[in-house]
Amino acid sequence: MRQTVNFSAGPAALPEEVLQQAANEMLDWHGSGMSVMEMSHRGSEYMSIQAQAEADLRELMGIPSNYKVLFQQGGATLQFYMIPLNLLRGKASIDFVHTGEWSKKAIKEAKGLAKVNIAASSEDRKFTYIPAQADWRLDRDAAYVHVCMNETIGGVEFHWIPDTGDVPLVGDLSSTFLSSRLDVSRFGLLYGGAQKNIGPAGLTIVIVRDDLIGHAPAGTSQMLDYQAQVDNDSMLNTPPTFSIYLAGLVFQWLKRQGGIAAIEERNIAKAKLLYDYIDSTDFYANPVAVPDRSRMNVPFTLRDASLDAAFLKGAEERHMVQLKGHRSVGGMRASIYNATPIEGVQRLVDYMREFEKQNG
Amino acid sequence: MRQTVNFSAGPAALPEEVLQQAANEMLDWHGSGMSVMEMSHRGSEYMSIQAQAEADLRELMGIPSNYKVLFQQGGATLQFYMIPLNLLRGKASIDFVHTGEWSKKAIKEAKGLAKVNIAASSEDRKFTYIPAQADWRLDRDAAYVHVCMNETIGGVEFHWIPDTGDVPLVGDLSSTFLSSRLDVSRFGLLYGGAQKNIGPAGLTIVIVRDDLIGHAPAGTSQMLDYQAQVDNDSMLNTPPTFSIYLAGLVFQWLKRQGGIAAIEERNIAKAKLLYDYIDSTDFYANPVAVPDRSRMNVPFTLRDASLDAAFLKGAEERHMVQLKGHRSVGGMRASIYNATPIEGVQRLVDYMREFEKQNG
Repeated sequence: MRQTVNFSAGPAALPEEVLQQAANEMLDWHGSGMSVMEMSHRGSEYMSIQAQAEADLRELMGIPSNYKVLFQQGGATLQFYMIPLNLLRGKASIDFVHTGEWSKKAIKEAKGLAKVNIAASSEDRKFTYIPAQADWRLDRDAAYVHVCMNETIGGVEFHWIPDTGDVPLVGDLSSTFLSSRLDVSRFGLLYGGAQKNIGPAGLTIVIVRDDLIGHAPAGTSQMLDYQAQVDNDSMLNTPPTFSIYLAGLVFQWLKRQGGIAAIEERNIAKAKLLYDYIDSTDFYANPVAVPDRSRMNVPFTLRDASLDAAFLKGAEERHMVQLKGHRSVGGMRASIYNATPIEGVQRLVDYMREFEKQNG
Repeated sequence: MRQTVNFSAGPAALPEEVLQQAANEMLDWHGSGMSVMEMSHRGSEYMSIQAQAEADLRELMGIPSNYKVLFQQGGATLQFYMIPLNLLRGKASIDFVHTGEWSKKAIKEAKGLAKVNIAASSEDRKFTYIPAQADWRLDRDAAYVHVCMNETIGGVEFHWIPDTGDVPLVGDLSSTFLSSRLDVSRFGLLYGGAQKNIGPAGLTIVIVRDDLIGHAPAGTSQMLDYQAQVDNDSMLNTPPTFSIYLAGLVFQWLKRQGGIAAIEERNIAKAKLLYDYIDSTDFYANPVAVPDRSRMNVPFTLRDASLDAAFLKGAEERHMVQLKGHRSVGGMRASIYNATPIEGVQRLVDYMREFEKQNG
């Protein structure tokens, strides 16, 4: 294990094994004499890398055959625009569940293209819970229902899948991709940036059901049209080849860990370790409703905010970095994605206990 | 020098020194304990990397202070759509100079948003020359004039800058970025994918004059609006951080080579070596008008196309790879971007001579 534990919310820590392999192969991939980033995307070497990455992702997530996997650019933010562009299908409005900052950004971009209906919101309690489905006001004629499966800033996560009947469910998986088992068939579309659980920033993965492809309005840029992307196997233009290669290395690492079920078990244990300690003392606090707490992003505050700077300084001295909370929430945030070993979380808890003793 | 010489048209060979440095820093950038791809894009470490990359690019190209530099995603192909979206400014039409496959793609995307006027075309002679400006039919009311400064497939290149008066000139620099001196102030906007002379695929650089920013129509997605990108210093969402870091390493490598003037001299010598040999024999041929020949992409055919497979096989046995020509042109293509050493070109010429002796 590396000495430094990196709690960044994203771009986030990657598995050490993956980074080591990427370094080893940097000048010569499998005897080709080339770095992966120097390969033509139309050549057999690179084509095999991308095909393997897709196959491994399909296996890991159990993606049904009537779903396409797209490797895109532009981050989730470009998808906030592309999804309504492609999925409106002549309908007038979209249902959104508003659970925090990332829902808000998705809503804002969709408003340029459609009427937005806020089917449910947790703004009344500062986005510290997931609204129960019984309270949602869904519209049967909506083009789709959009949920953000995990909010990195607020630290709230869906641990269940909403039932939206015949209306397609769209999920932003950016910060919870591959962290727990998920029934893909319950969704019409899943998407997310790679920079938390998958690989470097600059790669976006879209998983979309066949019947939702091919509905972009006439005149849509090919780059923004899922049908054109599908027709070209995500190679309408040069894809972000090196990022897809790294994602593929992460998928293989995940398989070596035992797949999603095994990593989910580890993620549950990691989150429990940290939340249990926070709940055991009033020196630290997490404001999120217990059943909706994120396993990926754990925001917490110190009782006395004037100690924040000292806490962060001590953490850095102990090689625990990027713990500062988002400015809108304050305090600290420990992001503990798939690549964070449980030993790293234990080190944080040990330090939190020590800091409390000295300052409590 | 690595044993393998990589003539890929893109993604293309990168400087060996840069790949070595990236490998060395992969697990720990400058003692931070993190890989660059694991750093928050809002943290001081990464912010310094991006700022340095921009400063070095500005210095190398002599970019005037009234131009913004944007680090984008989506490749030149997304710019084919974003440029008309942002630069139409209420005008009805765009002037295009049609010099080959990449001009054609740019024209196709622009047609979704505006009237396109083909001010000049070299289609009459299969895109083997650059039309002389005296023959262009420019429209004074055009929103801008678009040229592709180098066509990778046909192997034709502008070695001069058109004069478009008060109408902004827009140049696709994808395959000629940083390969020769260029007066940026003659352009309204320059853009290009990174995957030839700059870095890995997945990064697009846009250099745009201040007065052309801020004209996207109301309701445009923020991701597609230059003003929103400028307002957020290319960090509207997470930028492709690792690709920008690698681009920065390439910029520093270029400075160590003596900058653009020095690399241009080497590129002239490399191209001369190859074209002189092709012109010295009728065993090989290049169809492009001599003054318009590309210094970056050298397509050539064998007199007897039935020898193509044997030529490629012999080249691979000698560790010269990715020489196969584009299917639309046939034959061979040697792409000799900045990172290709002159020794690599000499090895190719030596092999071509040997192959001719055995088969001529």
